[in-house]
Amino acid sequence: MTDTLHALNASSEASTLVVSLSPPVRYSGIPLLAALKFRRSTRHYDSRPIPHGILSDLLWAAFGINRPNGDRTAPSWRHAMITDLYVARADGVYLYDPQAHALRLHTAADIRSKTGSQDFVTTAPVELIYVAHGERMVDVTDEERRLYASVDAAFIGENIYLFCASEGLGTVFRGAVDTKGLGQALRLPEGQFVTFVQTIGYAAVN
Amino acid sequence: MTDTLHALNASSEASTLVVSLSPPVRYSGIPLLAALKFRRSTRHYDSRPIPHGILSDLLWAAFGINRPNGDRTAPSWRHAMITDLYVARADGVYLYDPQAHALRLHTAADIRSKTGSQDFVTTAPVELIYVAHGERMVDVTDEERRLYASVDAAFIGENIYLFCASEGLGTVFRGAVDTKGLGQALRLPEGQFVTFVQTIGYAAVN
Repeated sequence: MTDTLHALNASSEASTLVVSLSPPVRYSGIPLLAALKFRRSTRHYDSRPIPHGILSDLLWAAFGINRPNGDRTAPSWRHAMITDLYVARADGVYLYDPQAHALRLHTAADIRSKTGSQDFVTTAPVELIYVAHGERMVDVTDEERRLYASVDAAFIGENIYLFCASEGLGTVFRGAVDTKGLGQALRLPEGQFVTFVQTIGYAAVN
Repeated sequence: MTDTLHALNASSEASTLVVSLSPPVRYSGIPLLAALKFRRSTRHYDSRPIPHGILSDLLWAAFGINRPNGDRTAPSWRHAMITDLYVARADGVYLYDPQAHALRLHTAADIRSKTGSQDFVTTAPVELIYVAHGERMVDVTDEERRLYASVDAAFIGENIYLFCASEGLGTVFRGAVDTKGLGQALRLPEGQFVTFVQTIGYAAVN
């Protein structure tokens, strides 16, 4: 929580606006192997927004707390919990707070166009940005730091793929991103860096 | 398939023994969010073997073909399908062939003890070894090659975490591995390399 508050204070546009989410009350969804059957990458989106309750469950599925000890739905390198999820929408960028299961406004700016050159980045309602707390990763080389942070993002990314398959949403995990420019747009503190971006929305009907 | 056969021919111990698996007939499993609820890492195993049908479904869930176009249950860097899954058991090492949904004997040796120093590596019935076809990854640096290969392994690893959560199996994705020594034990051809290992079995009852 200290880090979260620090990040908020570090941004001049930051506010303490909190969007409450509801933890899943039922552990619902389609059977796991059906979700695996329907898993795919989507590259054409329409602009329909994601309902609040769906986004809430998506974030819990991605990297929410699934046990009383604070552990998560995805594994973490050396249990260090190095990954933050930023939700970039037309109305601003929000940081997911797993402890409170809430979204905290990070900036009111729409930075989705900075997440890639594809047409869909400003069509799809959500670009999820993976940010690693490199400063929490000690006794590793720079190369290992980026590698293990990327691996941790991928575990979460696959959770999102399966959630989207279950809910009829489209998604694509993307690496061809100007991670430095995006980090600057997010005004990340020293040591934190962007690893990947994941587009989430409804597939365009062709 | 050419690569698979090449790998088999390259190993003096290789045979063409094929263990047929059955593609999932029902897209079963517990609801997705329940699997996410139960996802965890397990570090204590007993030696009970994994029934053949469960292992079959596990490999399909991990990285099986889920569409007529040959696409998979996990995404692939630039759609290059760079990841091979080797199943190391007491009775030998098998290569998973997604096209045939079968296991092909790679070597009759038990190499599980080479996958780590933890006690459980020779207790748990399966060590899954992730091997990347580096030679298929062009126009990237050595660092990027290892990074993207690792990310592709993690997508698959999370599928296995969720499958194990659904089936009451334990698993742990592991990076602290002598990847070079393990690659030598597998007699990998030039260009291929080990990225990670994942232990799979039944959790020991304490």
